[in-house]
Amino acid sequence: MNIYHIEHPDNAIREALTDKINNLTKPKGSLGMLEALALQIGWIQQTLTPSLHKPQNIVFAADHGIVEEGVSLSPKEVTWQQLFNFKRGGAGVNFLCRQHGFLLKIVDAGVDYDFPKELGIIDMKVRRGTRNYLHGAAMTWEEMELCLERGAAVVDLCHEEGSNILSFGEMGIGNTSASSIWMHRFTGISLEACVGAGSGLDKTGIRHKYDVLNKALENYRGDGSPMDIIRYFGGYEMVMAVGAMLRAAALKMVVLVDGFIMTSCLLAASRIAPAVTDYAVYGHCGDERGHKLLLEAMHAKPLLQLGLRLGEGTGAICAYPIVDSAVRMMNEMDSFKHAAITKYF
Amino acid sequence: MNIYHIEHPDNAIREALTDKINNLTKPKGSLGMLEALALQIGWIQQTLTPSLHKPQNIVFAADHGIVEEGVSLSPKEVTWQQLFNFKRGGAGVNFLCRQHGFLLKIVDAGVDYDFPKELGIIDMKVRRGTRNYLHGAAMTWEEMELCLERGAAVVDLCHEEGSNILSFGEMGIGNTSASSIWMHRFTGISLEACVGAGSGLDKTGIRHKYDVLNKALENYRGDGSPMDIIRYFGGYEMVMAVGAMLRAAALKMVVLVDGFIMTSCLLAASRIAPAVTDYAVYGHCGDERGHKLLLEAMHAKPLLQLGLRLGEGTGAICAYPIVDSAVRMMNEMDSFKHAAITKYF
Repeated sequence: MNIYHIEHPDNAIREALTDKINNLTKPKGSLGMLEALALQIGWIQQTLTPSLHKPQNIVFAADHGIVEEGVSLSPKEVTWQQLFNFKRGGAGVNFLCRQHGFLLKIVDAGVDYDFPKELGIIDMKVRRGTRNYLHGAAMTWEEMELCLERGAAVVDLCHEEGSNILSFGEMGIGNTSASSIWMHRFTGISLEACVGAGSGLDKTGIRHKYDVLNKALENYRGDGSPMDIIRYFGGYEMVMAVGAMLRAAALKMVVLVDGFIMTSCLLAASRIAPAVTDYAVYGHCGDERGHKLLLEAMHAKPLLQLGLRLGEGTGAICAYPIVDSAVRMMNEMDSFKHAAITKYF
Repeated sequence: MNIYHIEHPDNAIREALTDKINNLTKPKGSLGMLEALALQIGWIQQTLTPSLHKPQNIVFAADHGIVEEGVSLSPKEVTWQQLFNFKRGGAGVNFLCRQHGFLLKIVDAGVDYDFPKELGIIDMKVRRGTRNYLHGAAMTWEEMELCLERGAAVVDLCHEEGSNILSFGEMGIGNTSASSIWMHRFTGISLEACVGAGSGLDKTGIRHKYDVLNKALENYRGDGSPMDIIRYFGGYEMVMAVGAMLRAAALKMVVLVDGFIMTSCLLAASRIAPAVTDYAVYGHCGDERGHKLLLEAMHAKPLLQLGLRLGEGTGAICAYPIVDSAVRMMNEMDSFKHAAITKYF
């Protein structure tokens, strides 16, 4: 399968879906975003009785060479330390996965650490961290293609396991920097508006981060194609997520989008195959400055605004019960006709 | 127990709660509203390990005399018809209760219909609908006191059943009208800003609704006390919800607040016993025009904005998993010290 070929779902079913939704025992439109979601999921799955199976959250993790320029408050070793925490079950993503019945896959896309095999981390390591893109490309073309393929391979595994809805998260100190650059290049929004506090920078820190990224963009001499941008400003975990999202959409799975970084990855994916966004449900709009602007630029309506900025897929997983509600609405709610209720408004 | 006497939770525990939250394995503040909720629930329950037991949703239902003035698009018989639907399990509130493990209690506070006993509706009927408050008080003082007591009695039952978190919903064609008047009188916000589309009025309909309510307010000759306002502009189901919220807070239960009508009821409750809001979690901000203004006036931060306007408690129940997440965070997430992770930002 060509992971870059994604079809729009067939629109023919939309009228029947809308009819069904409008005849459930409630004033028309009164279940708001649940109704919009029900329409989308029914459209993706091409059925009036959609269903969700084996939700999984995949965390892609990697280190970023740019961190040596001081763009993040957090030391790089937090990336690998948190992966141990994920496998022990003590992190934010863990209690949310347990709560909502998600399987959790942790993928080493390029962490600067050698994990023991018995830890159960999926080894997709391309290299121990990207190169520092202040001075040149973060990764080679071969590495980029490897990332896309390996991201797709993880999704294939989930598909074989019976999943039809996936959320994607990340762990990678420094990855809001790459996301800001991707956003700036793919939307044309000024770099300044795309750069934010990450995991907690103050004003001076944000200014420094901006200066470093601005300099990196000045130094860039590539061809400006989507593939070259994601390669040059890298993030192995991010490119792997792009490949994963593309494959998930190609397989007609629902893609639950997490925070700023994963939204940047979806944006990049949409520059490769625009129809990928048909399959996307935007879980959460966080506090990262650029995220709101990015969602607006993508005409996306996030389900939640809870001020989360943890990553790991946490915002997407928190939104899952709302998607589940939309599906249950379609399967469990009665129609006016059957319930013998006067249709009301 | 005097249901009007509600104590603020003891503040002494707040520092320990904040310390615990700040030392979980995440950048400080990065779980946003989950952290604020964890602090609130821990404060209410006076423990560092809060827990939620047997969530229940109570729907109070009644008819409104004002409906004969044409303030609602929906015919009055929808109130009783929907109660049958609730008991059959085919309504919006039903699939959400099943999804999130809520017990559902349906209370007839004053519906203009005689339900068969075997239907299992809790019979707290005060009268078959309120009087039309365009021409006089919707209910007598005795009826109002009965409503408060009966609302409290339903909560006592839930408490005996082991619940420590309750959400409240309503079914009552015409009750956005009463809510608008309560809001106007208790906040001082202009009546015009408090009146909205209800279940789907157009501009002309909203204007007519405003004119009727404005006339009713002109005709009002009461003493202006909170008790007199809720009595005069009535809603048996609304006053019963006020009594229920007051008792729930007195019993130190978490009160999940639904949409515009239930927020108006909490507002009224807070004019009787201000500390009731310490126990309130605002589930959802809907599209009803006055609701956003009302939440702002109450300094309330709703968890969800999903465009719901169904009532029945649906917005509150949709927010429950977020409250559950906050509690799980406190019990399941590891600390930096224990996980041997460099504290990061």
